[in-house]
Amino acid sequence: MTDTLLDRRDLEFLLYDWLHAEQLYARPQFAEHSRESVAAVLDLAERIAADWFLPHYKAADQQEPWLDASGVHVLPAVREALGHYTEVGLFAAGFAPEQGGMGLPYLVQSAVAVGFAAANAATAAFVMLTVANARLIVQFGSPAQIEQFARPQIQGRWFGTMCLSEPQAGSSLADIRTRADPDGEDRLGRRYRLSGNKMWISAGDQDVSENIVHLVLAKVPGADGAPVEGTKGISLFIVPKVLPDGTANDVSVAGLNHKMGYRGTPNCLLNFGERGGALGWLVGETGQGLPQMFQMMNEARIGVGLGAAALAYRGYRHAVDYARERRQGRPPGVRGGAPMPLIGHADIKHMLLAQKAYAEGALALCLYCARLVDDSGDPEAASLLALLTPVAKSWPAEFGLLANELAIQVHGGYGYTRDFDVEQLYRDNRLNPIHEGTTGIQAIDLLGRKILRDRGSGLGVAAARVARTAALAAGSAELAPHAAALAAAWQHVAATVALLERAPGVTAFDNATAFLRALGHVVVAWLWLDQAVLAVARGTEPLFAGKLRACRYFFECELPLARLWLDFVASRSDVSAAAPAEQF
Amino acid sequence: MTDTLLDRRDLEFLLYDWLHAEQLYARPQFAEHSRESVAAVLDLAERIAADWFLPHYKAADQQEPWLDASGVHVLPAVREALGHYTEVGLFAAGFAPEQGGMGLPYLVQSAVAVGFAAANAATAAFVMLTVANARLIVQFGSPAQIEQFARPQIQGRWFGTMCLSEPQAGSSLADIRTRADPDGEDRLGRRYRLSGNKMWISAGDQDVSENIVHLVLAKVPGADGAPVEGTKGISLFIVPKVLPDGTANDVSVAGLNHKMGYRGTPNCLLNFGERGGALGWLVGETGQGLPQMFQMMNEARIGVGLGAAALAYRGYRHAVDYARERRQGRPPGVRGGAPMPLIGHADIKHMLLAQKAYAEGALALCLYCARLVDDSGDPEAASLLALLTPVAKSWPAEFGLLANELAIQVHGGYGYTRDFDVEQLYRDNRLNPIHEGTTGIQAIDLLGRKILRDRGSGLGVAAARVARTAALAAGSAELAPHAAALAAAWQHVAATVALLERAPGVTAFDNATAFLRALGHVVVAWLWLDQAVLAVARGTEPLFAGKLRACRYFFECELPLARLWLDFVASRSDVSAAAPAEQF
Repeated sequence: MTDTLLDRRDLEFLLYDWLHAEQLYARPQFAEHSRESVAAVLDLAERIAADWFLPHYKAADQQEPWLDASGVHVLPAVREALGHYTEVGLFAAGFAPEQGGMGLPYLVQSAVAVGFAAANAATAAFVMLTVANARLIVQFGSPAQIEQFARPQIQGRWFGTMCLSEPQAGSSLADIRTRADPDGEDRLGRRYRLSGNKMWISAGDQDVSENIVHLVLAKVPGADGAPVEGTKGISLFIVPKVLPDGTANDVSVAGLNHKMGYRGTPNCLLNFGERGGALGWLVGETGQGLPQMFQMMNEARIGVGLGAAALAYRGYRHAVDYARERRQGRPPGVRGGAPMPLIGHADIKHMLLAQKAYAEGALALCLYCARLVDDSGDPEAASLLALLTPVAKSWPAEFGLLANELAIQVHGGYGYTRDFDVEQLYRDNRLNPIHEGTTGIQAIDLLGRKILRDRGSGLGVAAARVARTAALAAGSAELAPHAAALAAAWQHVAATVALLERAPGVTAFDNATAFLRALGHVVVAWLWLDQAVLAVARGTEPLFAGKLRACRYFFECELPLARLWLDFVASRSDVSAAAPAEQF
Repeated sequence: MTDTLLDRRDLEFLLYDWLHAEQLYARPQFAEHSRESVAAVLDLAERIAADWFLPHYKAADQQEPWLDASGVHVLPAVREALGHYTEVGLFAAGFAPEQGGMGLPYLVQSAVAVGFAAANAATAAFVMLTVANARLIVQFGSPAQIEQFARPQIQGRWFGTMCLSEPQAGSSLADIRTRADPDGEDRLGRRYRLSGNKMWISAGDQDVSENIVHLVLAKVPGADGAPVEGTKGISLFIVPKVLPDGTANDVSVAGLNHKMGYRGTPNCLLNFGERGGALGWLVGETGQGLPQMFQMMNEARIGVGLGAAALAYRGYRHAVDYARERRQGRPPGVRGGAPMPLIGHADIKHMLLAQKAYAEGALALCLYCARLVDDSGDPEAASLLALLTPVAKSWPAEFGLLANELAIQVHGGYGYTRDFDVEQLYRDNRLNPIHEGTTGIQAIDLLGRKILRDRGSGLGVAAARVARTAALAAGSAELAPHAAALAAAWQHVAATVALLERAPGVTAFDNATAFLRALGHVVVAWLWLDQAVLAVARGTEPLFAGKLRACRYFFECELPLARLWLDFVASRSDVSAAAPAEQF
């Protein structure tokens, strides 16, 4: 087994050769960082991930969190791993020094995060949620709220959650029923009493951190005493498990969800206000809950993509290791002699190459978007980021999952057993096309908001960058055919969008998911080619020759799919939309 | 929830409207059967499946079989369900009256089997293995062996296993090391003492049946005392757990495999001959083990496809039920009012339609092949069956699995929990692309044996039948475009085969899996169109309108994929085959 979860040379290639992270360190706010100091952080992260997160990967799957009268409990190993994470101060990685943070660029934070997700996605989820929670409070909260609720999370003493969904309202947040009734004001802001049920709350309770900061979406009653209808009525509240005076807040765990994977993270049904109302403080103004949450949600979506990429990447590396070690069969036509390693068989190599193209392609996509987060002061970068966010959420989830499925297949019967990790990686990854907005929801976001509403401003930026990559690649004999294929594919995207813009009625959304998938494939092809331009000069080194091969695989076997999907979108087919329910 | 696992009307449509099962009852060997008597058998099977197999579906997943000093134990509910199956005589369904059987056509047996697989694939596996074992003994064993070992299985008192794989020899049976040393002869035939380790033995031990009949592949030493190399040295032996004199044979359980799914079936590592050699009786002649086993294996492969179809079918029906009941969101652009059922959303309908096309398409494919088994006295039917067997094994496994994945997605977060069945259906189905020959192995069988070696005789039969379907469909305005598309796709298959035949070197196999998948898609498109020809006249009834819609979906969204895959095969791309191991 390779001794690291991610190939560090690959990561450095992405960060420096490709995404020029060193340009970020030249900016004033990142001036105290350098390639060397970041390498030390990555070393540290790699060590903590391998020594503390990885070892309980299976144990936390086998012994799920459990609920008793005192609350939810997790394995001691989970607590211990997070303790080490806290101890080395990694919760602070992404926060500015004035909040006690290390002030690392988002790109570097993402590179840190991906190693933990690869080692143990379920334990790493506690971190991701806490950081997202604190970041939201830092951005929209008052100084007192930041001091009271964000700082302990940045220190890793308290953890955070996001309480959006309810049993009757998953994708449709307009339908939430949790209500917040005014209850005066104090130094922490306008106070409310919340009551309602929140579903799917990851890390909603645990016995790891001293306190839990819930960020809760709820509705404040209007003048008529009834909650305001739709999403405009939604506000955001800070609801701590333990109140500042040390007493318990009115939040209780109604049950745990028992999941297919990601079992190390407790997933709770929380009841707020069973005993008169949970105390919560309004963040910012009323009615701003959804835009505030979506600020965070956009980064969370890139985080989901990154997690999916990490699981795919680790599964791929397991499959490669297994295929090198396991001997089975002989070349076609050969009967005698010793069996050959699996990795000698064309079909096995095809499955490995697909995994490489998906896993490394997904990682590249997410890190590219992470770099855009760092650049998002620039309106062009911001609009490209807006366009790519639903892609970065969904493409790694869909194709990373497929990579994990192929990793099982490479292992044969052994991959189907729990003695190997690949079946668990698959089960863990199966969550990713669902949470933080399903693939179908991402598709509507992409087509509805990012393309039809924003009149394709992100698409224009992408077009220019795609053209630049294609022009560079056209100069290489090896890559020129791919450059032409990419240009044609982009043309096809643009023509399809133009067609939808001419008739942007509701039926434009009928096949939005096919459009999302197609754009994802074209974007990933572009990013593969962009890396291949760098690799072509050094193609004799295995790392770079491997990149070129994965690029070639993607253009031969994957990009053509985009053509089919775009043709289908352009046909405005109503095969699904017009199907009456009784035909199923 | 619908009250049956399979739509009986759908099943009857396939059996009678489409596959003309009544023609079978007109044959002398099936003369005692009729549509009415078969309906009674299907009613009985449906009831046993729903009342006894379905209820412990989750329980047998949660409480896996366990091993103690006395052997392997399963849940009492598993024993009870199989007891009911035995009691009503269903083990005998497929055997001739002279063996104490009911003498049902293979098509009807398959229709019976699919309901049990849908209800509880892991419990149904005991039946499938036992029937396959007994059938093999009936076909190749001596009268004494049939009486001693097959009859108790036909009665359901004893169960059977297939012992092929070893820890070091999975797909590559040539490398098995289990050896059989001659030990005289008795009324049951030539006796041997076997020693070796057998891996992945489903139902290898259990506490359900009175005895277990292992059918074991092993090698008899040659004149030099060493086992004969390669597959030619393989012979088949009957090795009972309990010997005819009532003493224990030298077979022990070395361990259980803990699987991702299919957990209700114990999967064992068996050691033969730890105490001097397990007694076994040779079936037929030495060196015939592999051809004998493959006779059975071919039916087992259709059985695997049928099982995969059953899991996909049940998952699809769960998804439809959930989508009808669960209300979430509103049509695009609508803000107020009550939420709509999920089934109103185009994206959900698309996912349901894909599942319908995969699940019902897979079932149709397997039943079509089952009918070919009944017709296999006819050389044309036999060669078509040989061609389609690897497709019937792999296509339902691959696309049935995808259907189950989509069923999870339709359920959203709930589908990811173990409160619903769809995640387990997925986990169960994940076995099917692996066992009884992986998808990659099927691809080599298809291209190597059924096409290049047999000079495409099955392909010729298929071509004629495809052309007949296309001609019929061309007469319908609605279906004519599909008829043209099918004809073009078949042309593409033929052209690709011709190209491979012109240069049938080892590189012909490099992309065999892509060819298998492409042929699968073209074949399923053909079978969908063949059914649509029947449905078009009755398209106003939901069952038939649904068939037409699934057919349309398949031609719009799936068949075009075959073109891409065939183009890839025809390109003779070495993108995978030429990849050196160090590039991964």
